[in-house]
Amino acid sequence: MTNETINQILKFRDDREWKQFHNPKDLAISISLEAAELLEVFQWSGSDTSYEDKQEKIKEELADVINYCVLMADACGLDIDTIVTEKIKKNNEKYPVEKARGKRDKYTKL
Amino acid sequence: MTNETINQILKFRDDREWKQFHNPKDLAISISLEAAELLEVFQWSGSDTSYEDKQEKIKEELADVINYCVLMADACGLDIDTIVTEKIKKNNEKYPVEKARGKRDKYTKL
Amino acid sequence: MTNETINQILKFRDDREWKQFHNPKDLAISISLEAAELLEVFQWSGSDTSYEDKQEKIKEELADVINYCVLMADACGLDIDTIVTEKIKKNNEKYPVEKARGKRDKYTKL
Amino acid sequence: MTNETINQILKFRDDREWKQFHNPKDLAISISLEAAELLEVFQWSGSDTSYEDKQEKIKEELADVINYCVLMADACGLDIDTIVTEKIKKNNEKYPVEKARGKRDKYTKL
Repeated sequence: MTNETINQILKFRDDREWKQFHNPKDLAISISLEAAELLEVFQWSGSDTSYEDKQEKIKEELADVINYCVLMADACGLDIDTIVTEKIKKNNEKYPVEKARGKRDKYTKL
Repeated sequence: MTNETINQILKFRDDREWKQFHNPKDLAISISLEAAELLEVFQWSGSDTSYEDKQEKIKEELADVINYCVLMADACGLDIDTIVTEKIKKNNEKYPVEKARGKRDKYTKL
Repeated sequence: MTNETINQILKFRDDREWKQFHNPKDLAISISLEAAELLEVFQWSGSDTSYEDKQEKIKEELADVINYCVLMADACGLDIDTIVTEKIKKNNEKYPVEKARGKRDKYTKL
Repeated sequence: MTNETINQILKFRDDREWKQFHNPKDLAISISLEAAELLEVFQWSGSDTSYEDKQEKIKEELADVINYCVLMADACGLDIDTIVTEKIKKNNEKYPVEKARGKRDKYTKL
């Protein structure tokens, strides 16, 4: 995601003077709500896990989740590249390649 | 988010041969689950909406949500910059600056 | 659900003096978190939608969701039978039998 | 919740021949989605955790969550009173009264 995209997100917020509502608790709620809207695309799909016929909706709902993640990072003074890189380091320890390869188990079960 | 960060996320998945499990429906579920873990940081905080004492946990859980968003975009053949930019355009129409400024209402109520 | 079960839930709360934390916003968050734990049972199950091998976990997580629903109803002064019966009436109008039979569509698409 | 209420929920489903769609995975997704709609009532409420002005919406959304919990229990062959009572027993062990009284901590921190 380019800085230009991130700046578009922040400009959208600032043009509407919405920063005043963007406390971290309500932003965390908003990320959950948008994640639910993304999940709704797959409601009642049963064993069909494909996405091709759902792509237009996925695009919009996934964009909404990312949008709020950027706003949450901004509200909490966090840099996305830094926190993601740090988390991958931790996940590398939780899920060593030799143990986790080809397995869908949670790290507590490896 | 730099391409280097995105590549780290995809490399982590590929090193573990996890792409086989990453169908869009289960990825959408995973985004919801990580969003819930982020939200859990604020459970029982009542009217306290601050983040300072919770920042270490927020870092990790927000990184997890973003991580799965990148994996979802990859699984569905979507470019993050493109879908976010397109969504901002739509949101600009749903929330015109003059109507939405300083208001926390949903677009259906503006 | 018998009144005895409901009273067990409320007694558990009162024995621990937890009513002071049970504001409606945090209870709504808690219902979401428990719903996510229930959903986690099905993470990475792909096209397998069965429950037999997951029943022990489903029991516990579904019980947690119901538990918090009872606590939410109590905190907001709501009677469960009344609100469920009223909602079924509304759903009967949104989903008329003739239109909805055998279809998984949302009411907006019927 | 009386058996009459539960039977209303099941009759609503059967009148529409929806049991065919009610696999446990999609029901778990549905419980999450309805929990999100309940949570949405509190989005952007900031430090205001009251419910009085939101009660009409809470009624409907909480009823929807309970509705799907009943359908999930039925689909998985579970009796609600049994699973809730069993879970309270477990919670009694996880949260002993002497340790948990007046504290909002998770059992892992008590």
